[in-house]
Amino acid sequence: MSQTIKVGIVGYGNLGRGVELAIRQNPDLELVAIFTRREPGNLNSAQGGAKFEHISAAEQYKGKIDVMILCGGSATDLPEQTPAIASMFNTVDSFDTHAKIPEFYEAVDAAAKRSGTLSVISTGWDPGLFSLNRLLAEAILPEGKDYTFWGKGVSQGHSDAIRRVPGVKAGVQYTVPVQSVIDRIRSGETPELATREKHLRQCFVVAEEGADQERIRAEIVGMPNYFADYDTTVTFITEEELRAEHAGMPHGGFVIRSGVTGAGTKQIVEFGLKLESNPEFTASVLVAYARAAHRLSEQGQSGARTVFDIPLGLLSPKSADELRRDLL
Amino acid sequence: MSQTIKVGIVGYGNLGRGVELAIRQNPDLELVAIFTRREPGNLNSAQGGAKFEHISAAEQYKGKIDVMILCGGSATDLPEQTPAIASMFNTVDSFDTHAKIPEFYEAVDAAAKRSGTLSVISTGWDPGLFSLNRLLAEAILPEGKDYTFWGKGVSQGHSDAIRRVPGVKAGVQYTVPVQSVIDRIRSGETPELATREKHLRQCFVVAEEGADQERIRAEIVGMPNYFADYDTTVTFITEEELRAEHAGMPHGGFVIRSGVTGAGTKQIVEFGLKLESNPEFTASVLVAYARAAHRLSEQGQSGARTVFDIPLGLLSPKSADELRRDLL
Repeated sequence: MSQTIKVGIVGYGNLGRGVELAIRQNPDLELVAIFTRREPGNLNSAQGGAKFEHISAAEQYKGKIDVMILCGGSATDLPEQTPAIASMFNTVDSFDTHAKIPEFYEAVDAAAKRSGTLSVISTGWDPGLFSLNRLLAEAILPEGKDYTFWGKGVSQGHSDAIRRVPGVKAGVQYTVPVQSVIDRIRSGETPELATREKHLRQCFVVAEEGADQERIRAEIVGMPNYFADYDTTVTFITEEELRAEHAGMPHGGFVIRSGVTGAGTKQIVEFGLKLESNPEFTASVLVAYARAAHRLSEQGQSGARTVFDIPLGLLSPKSADELRRDLL
Repeated sequence: MSQTIKVGIVGYGNLGRGVELAIRQNPDLELVAIFTRREPGNLNSAQGGAKFEHISAAEQYKGKIDVMILCGGSATDLPEQTPAIASMFNTVDSFDTHAKIPEFYEAVDAAAKRSGTLSVISTGWDPGLFSLNRLLAEAILPEGKDYTFWGKGVSQGHSDAIRRVPGVKAGVQYTVPVQSVIDRIRSGETPELATREKHLRQCFVVAEEGADQERIRAEIVGMPNYFADYDTTVTFITEEELRAEHAGMPHGGFVIRSGVTGAGTKQIVEFGLKLESNPEFTASVLVAYARAAHRLSEQGQSGARTVFDIPLGLLSPKSADELRRDLL
């Protein structure tokens, strides 16, 4: 009954540190060890006291860990790690390369079914909570149109793109939803929107000494895929300003569905997040789904699952009776 | 595969008419008949063409209807109807007397288990979608505080209370959330709020000729349970104004959780609805859960379920593959 759920973390970047912090907020969960590809002796835990192990030692924890929370990146880490770890443990990950989710699902599902484990893939807030809300609103309002806005928040991919421009020493990019468009949708309009109309891109750039700022600006705003389709602003700042004002990782966004029922009756469903730390929030979602993964596994289930497959009651430490009494 | 889900409606007030309209928006669902305690020959269908039956004929539809959507009231209809109908059919209802949900659940669960049927109880938007969002946000942000605001919308109970005041011919009451408080919460504050601080109550009243308006006003604003704990405004209008401007049934509201992760990092999760018709939207939620009830029953499950127990993927007509590909 009061047995804790034993959790391992694989990968110790911003997300892994967030998971360590989130586990402390959930007394029914217990952190057993953090697994890393680095030299484990060199790492310091965000909270102090965590045990570090090299990833190659994971197998020795079979039977001692109920769920592994995988905190690697979607580009190269997770496509390898999730199926490998799923052959030994229940897992939760935040795989977010939308176009590759079907093949990722198949690979993880096969590995988990072979070994009788359960894997929750692609959770977090998008994919994750935003996906749940897109599904929910579409199922309830089949005649309608939905909009996803991201931000205001730091986009890692776009920040990396800025930093690859010659003459750029450092920089950060914010994705900013266009407020006037959100207001139109909230008031019941259902506009067709070009990419440029939904989001702005704000870049804060530290240039190398003597670099040509106008050339840098032109290279950024014209960069295909990243900036060319958007209204982009470039502001040059000092390294001190970057450190003082742009060190956080805020993010958020909205999923809005505007639909009709009956004879054109307007109905609007909206879900929104305003996050001071993107990785800490994503980590908190992963931790709640780790609880669900363990429970599904205890029920004898195996294979891959997404947020669409999991009753939300399994995310809460409360019993079904308590949930009906206190939260319904 | 392309077999439609056969649906019956029990009760034909605003909610039942909404369900009839919502079924038309979902090609995988088919309305078989509407059951009523009134004389069925006297009823006209919102869309035309629906078949009406007296409620006593329901038993003859065993095997011909997959799910009954129960559209009666929570005070006296559903506590009797849901267990009775659950002994013959899968059911969905919107039982919303919060304090009595545990005993209602037990009664329906027993009836449904005895007869091998499945009953989704207490769905709609509150209880229902708001409950889901309270649970989700609390599970993800265990350290935090949540707020539910209703409105702007018509409260049937409060409108009825106004109409019981001597000298009142007709009237309608709007529950209005206090915008300045919502703004404070959205900006990260977590105030302790008295009832009076969260909602205003706006009453539009048609007085009988010669009635003392000041006495009516005083009786309304001082009415215990309904108005005494709120800031209440009373505006006297004509019957024509009531018909022209207050015939709709708009509603909506917000569930907001403001929590912290890590070392005091603020994270805000918000879900909101803006509805031109409360009964049509509630009906649309019931219809989506009817699809889920049928699918769970097809899996061989029986007993009572709430929104907390049901994977959201079951609400959508799309397959799990499509959902992963298009909505995750």
